[in-house]
This record gives sequence, structure tokens and C-alpha cells, in this order.
Amino acid sequence: MAGVHPATASRALNQQTESLVNVETAARIKKVAAEMGYSPNPIARSLKTSRSASIGLVIPDLTNPLFPPIVRGVEDVLRTIGYNAWIVNTDNRPDVEKTAVESFRQRNVEGFVFATAHLKHPLLEELAAASTPMVLVNRRTNGADIPSVTSDDAAGVALAMQHLVDLGHTKIVHLAGPQDLSTGVTRRRAFLSSLEELQLPAESTRTVICDEWSEQAGAKAMRTLLDSGPEFTAVLAGNDLLALGVYDALSERGLRCPDDISVVGFNDMPFMDKVSPPMTTVRIPHYEIGAEAARLLLEVLNDPERHPRSLLLPLTMVVRSSTGPVPAPRTRG
Amino acid sequence: MAGVHPATASRALNQQTESLVNVETAARIKKVAAEMGYSPNPIARSLKTSRSASIGLVIPDLTNPLFPPIVRGVEDVLRTIGYNAWIVNTDNRPDVEKTAVESFRQRNVEGFVFATAHLKHPLLEELAAASTPMVLVNRRTNGADIPSVTSDDAAGVALAMQHLVDLGHTKIVHLAGPQDLSTGVTRRRAFLSSLEELQLPAESTRTVICDEWSEQAGAKAMRTLLDSGPEFTAVLAGNDLLALGVYDALSERGLRCPDDISVVGFNDMPFMDKVSPPMTTVRIPHYEIGAEAARLLLEVLNDPERHPRSLLLPLTMVVRSSTGPVPAPRTRG
Repeated sequence: MAGVHPATASRALNQQTESLVNVETAARIKKVAAEMGYSPNPIARSLKTSRSASIGLVIPDLTNPLFPPIVRGVEDVLRTIGYNAWIVNTDNRPDVEKTAVESFRQRNVEGFVFATAHLKHPLLEELAAASTPMVLVNRRTNGADIPSVTSDDAAGVALAMQHLVDLGHTKIVHLAGPQDLSTGVTRRRAFLSSLEELQLPAESTRTVICDEWSEQAGAKAMRTLLDSGPEFTAVLAGNDLLALGVYDALSERGLRCPDDISVVGFNDMPFMDKVSPPMTTVRIPHYEIGAEAARLLLEVLNDPERHPRSLLLPLTMVVRSSTGPVPAPRTRG
Repeated sequence: MAGVHPATASRALNQQTESLVNVETAARIKKVAAEMGYSPNPIARSLKTSRSASIGLVIPDLTNPLFPPIVRGVEDVLRTIGYNAWIVNTDNRPDVEKTAVESFRQRNVEGFVFATAHLKHPLLEELAAASTPMVLVNRRTNGADIPSVTSDDAAGVALAMQHLVDLGHTKIVHLAGPQDLSTGVTRRRAFLSSLEELQLPAESTRTVICDEWSEQAGAKAMRTLLDSGPEFTAVLAGNDLLALGVYDALSERGLRCPDDISVVGFNDMPFMDKVSPPMTTVRIPHYEIGAEAARLLLEVLNDPERHPRSLLLPLTMVVRSSTGPVPAPRTRG
């Protein structure tokens, strides 16, 4: 109807080949197409070009408050360029993850964003070896050099420790997260380095490792420290959930926060300004992590030969009411 | 390689037609296919059968704590039967929603789950008129008879009111949510009915309508009530976010909760047990709402002729520390 060869019409109606067609011809073709109610079929197109304009987004559990803003950041960036995201929750189960990845590959996704990385992660290494376009968010692996967007946790821990030292604290303990995750390992290492740099007491009993990021695990670890740990006046929790568990354990023992013990969290989840006491914590820009991950993935898709690179986003200290001056010395009883 | 006609092999390798093939033949074909590394291409298949095993999930904003458990419930049910979900955030913007729906349709989704319904919602009515398979979650429309899964909000309001009356409260006010959403309207109507049934004071000034579900809107409405409303000892907030705003406004005025004013929320969002004071609220089973919506959509897909039906899920009262006995009478100053 536009009086052109079908191949020309096809080129004009495809954003990736549009520039091959004379501008006026392309405009005429588009006008006719619009009048005819033409609507491109991305599924048919993806078979020919293997560009599906879709990506797979693999997360542990959307009901963990960390992940919604990351997903939102990814989706917002993709949406502006006509890409869509598939989403799956794996609960960190390798079998669920493997099935989901297989399913997304069959659906011709162009790439992946993974929020599920473990330090040792055979599936991710396998995908990296096959040059699968992907970006890791929040956590990294030890193995393959996979592009990632994470927060600068070491710098965040240093901020938190300086805040405690400024309040007069010298006897500080750390509830570390799971040591098969980069977040757990990086924060623990940064804590140990801080003790050294700030010349603070550094017995090995000053860290307790929690099996999972949960209030229950935080409460359990805190009880252990109160029962058999060294003397301390402040706790750096590996994340806000562990810190909430610390609140519970302190309350069980009739200890007040921050009058007896100061507590610092990590993440600044929603509503941490509303808990009692409002939590001093290190804020991770989760939305920006998701948005940057989507941008990085699009870069990888557009230039597969480019050397992989990773982003570390800066953190900020949010001082509320769970930290205060070091209390007068007292005898533990 | 299995010594059969290609059409037989195709039938055997497709779950929907597998039963047409002799069991032993099908097993032989599958074995050969597995040895050959055969992997079905759902995109190619969707062109032929128009079954894409995918659905579009349209939500206002994933960072509102209501929605992650709903999404998780939908995704969990779909995943078990090999379906995947596309996700999009619309911020309740009709243009974003329209573009997303168009994009998902071009990708041959089999149906939709919408968490974005407004009482008047032209796009949803248009889709319903075209017999598009879909289910609404959390909110409903006024117009077309579209299957939905929501909580039994009227029953939830009655539970909350009875709880307040049991504590001796008779002077109760309501912060209502936006009146273009079914949740806002249903809860307000139920509040007004409760006043009548329980024979409580029912001046029209006992409800204030908030423009949005937010802490800011809740605080603003509460200031209005404190400045120029009738006397009251208890507040039923339309949801937990509004109730958190009530906390802020009370605190500004030096009023204590629950000693001066009792407050009830609605939803039981994460961490409402950790705020100060821990919030008495009506718990909505958001995960189950999502899971039931996915099941209902699959029923619609399997039997398009079936009369549309909707589910109302029961609510439970969660009593914490923001409600207490009615205070001794005092003179407002």
C-alpha cells in the first residue's frame, strides 16, 4: 500500500534497521502501517532476529524488603526502552534457579539479572563460561569475572564504625551474615579491618556468624554474645533484620537500647525509622542498584566484546536513636 | 531416529497432545529426543498454538509493601505448572498501563493479573468486553463483572470495630482511603454501617477522606480531626500507612497512643509488630490473595465459558499495643 518492496517496509518498521531506509520513505511506510493498524509481533520477530527485548530477573525472595526496590529499578529502566522483565523467586534453591534459567532461555531472553549469587555458584560460572549476558546485583561470586552492581559495603562498615567510635565506643561486636554470600563476607572482613585500623580490642570472639539473614538468627547470636562473649557496649549487625533480632534479645534481658547497648543495622529497609528505637543504619541505595544493573546489562547486550566491569555504589550513614554515648562502666551480672 | 512420523514425534513432545500417542512410542521418542539434546522452543510453539505459558502481572508499585507477597503468591503457583510471569509497575498511570498491556499482548500472554483496578477503569472494561482472560487482585472495579480475589474488608472493619467497642470506645473516627478505589470505599461504607449497627455517634465529621494511602495523608487527616473534628478516643485507619501517619500527628501534639487515643490499622504490613507502639491491625492474607488469583486465572484459561466468579478471603484481627481501654473523660484544650 505504500508502493514499496515488502523488504523495505519490513526494514522501515524495525527500529534496528530503520536507518537503512530513506527518511521520507520510512515516514510514508509508517503512516500507512499506522492506518492499517499494523502492530509488530515481537514473538515472530524474536525468532528471526533472536532479539526478544526481554530479560530474566532471578531473585531469592520478593518478600524480603531488600528486593522490591531492586526489581523496581530494573523494571523502570527496561520499560523506558520497550524491554520487559520476567521474574522468578528461587528461595536460593539451585534446582529452582536452574529450571527458571532454562525456562527463560527457551523464551529467548537476551540476558539475566541475578540477585541470587553465592560465592561459589556453579550455574553462574557455567553461564559466564558460555558468555551469557548477565549482571549480578547486591551479591557477587568468587569465581568468574561477572559484571555486578553492589554497594560499597567495606566503606559502609567504616562509616558505621567511625560513628560508634565518635560516640566513645571501643568495645564493639559484630553479628556477621552467612559466609557463603559476598555481603556476609565483605562486611565481616571490613569489621575486622576496622578494629585493627581504629586500634580497638579485636578478640576472635567479637564476631558471631549467623546462618541466615533473619531476626531469629540475630536474636540467637545476640544471646550467645550476652551469655559468653567479651564485654561490649555496641553491636554492628550485618543487616537490619539481624539488628531487629538484637532488639528482641536485649529486651528479653531487660537491657535498653541505646542506654545499655548501641545497635547499628545495615540496609535501611522500609520502616526502620518507625521501629523502637528508630534504627541507626547504613543506607544501601537498592533502587539505584537495580537501575544501574539494567543499564549495565543493556551495555553488555549492545557491546558483547567490551571488557566486563562492575559498579560499587556509595552508602550513607543514617543516624537515628539506636546509638548513643558509651554508658558508664558497669559490672556484668 | 525414533522410527516414527515427524507429526507423531511432535505430538509426543508436546504436553498437550502427548496423550494422543501410544505410551511406549512416546517414551521411545522422548528418550531419543533427550539423547539428541532436544529442547522445545516455546516461542516457536506459541506462534502455532497461541499458548505462551505466560501471563502479565500489572501492579501499581512493588515498593509498596502490600504487593511483594501478592506477586510472590502469583509466581509460586504459576511456576509449579511451568508458567512464567511478566511484571510491570504502573504507578497507577493509565498511559503506562496501556503501553504495558499492549506490550504483553504482543508477547502473546494468555492472561493478566491486575492489582491496579480503579472503580472506574476504562481499559479493564475494554479488555473484559473483549473477553480477555484476567483476574483482579486486592481491588475491584464497579463496571464489568471481572473475576477478582480480594479480602473481605467489610468483615474486617466489623472485627476492628467490635475490638474497640469491647475496650469501651464509643467515640470512634475513620481515616478513609481514596474513594476511587474499592478498598477505600468498602472500608468507609463498612465503618458507617458499623456505627449504625453498634448504635454509636455517627456525625458525618467522623470520617475524613485521604487523597492517597500514605503516612503524609494520614498525618494531615489526623491533624484536621484533632483541630476541628468531633470528640473521639479511637481511630480506625483505612490502612497501616495512614495509621503510621496518625502516630506522627499524635506525637506532634504530645498525645500518647493508646493512653490518650487508640489506633487500629489495616493490612498488617511487615514490621508492624516492630513499630512504636506495636500496631493493632487487621491482617490481610496477601500471599494467599496472589496464589488464589493465579489459580483462578488458570481456571479461566482452561474453561473460558465458565461464569466469572470472585473470591473474598477472610481477615483476622491482630491485637498488639496501639489499642487500649477508653481513657477517663477529659476536657479537650
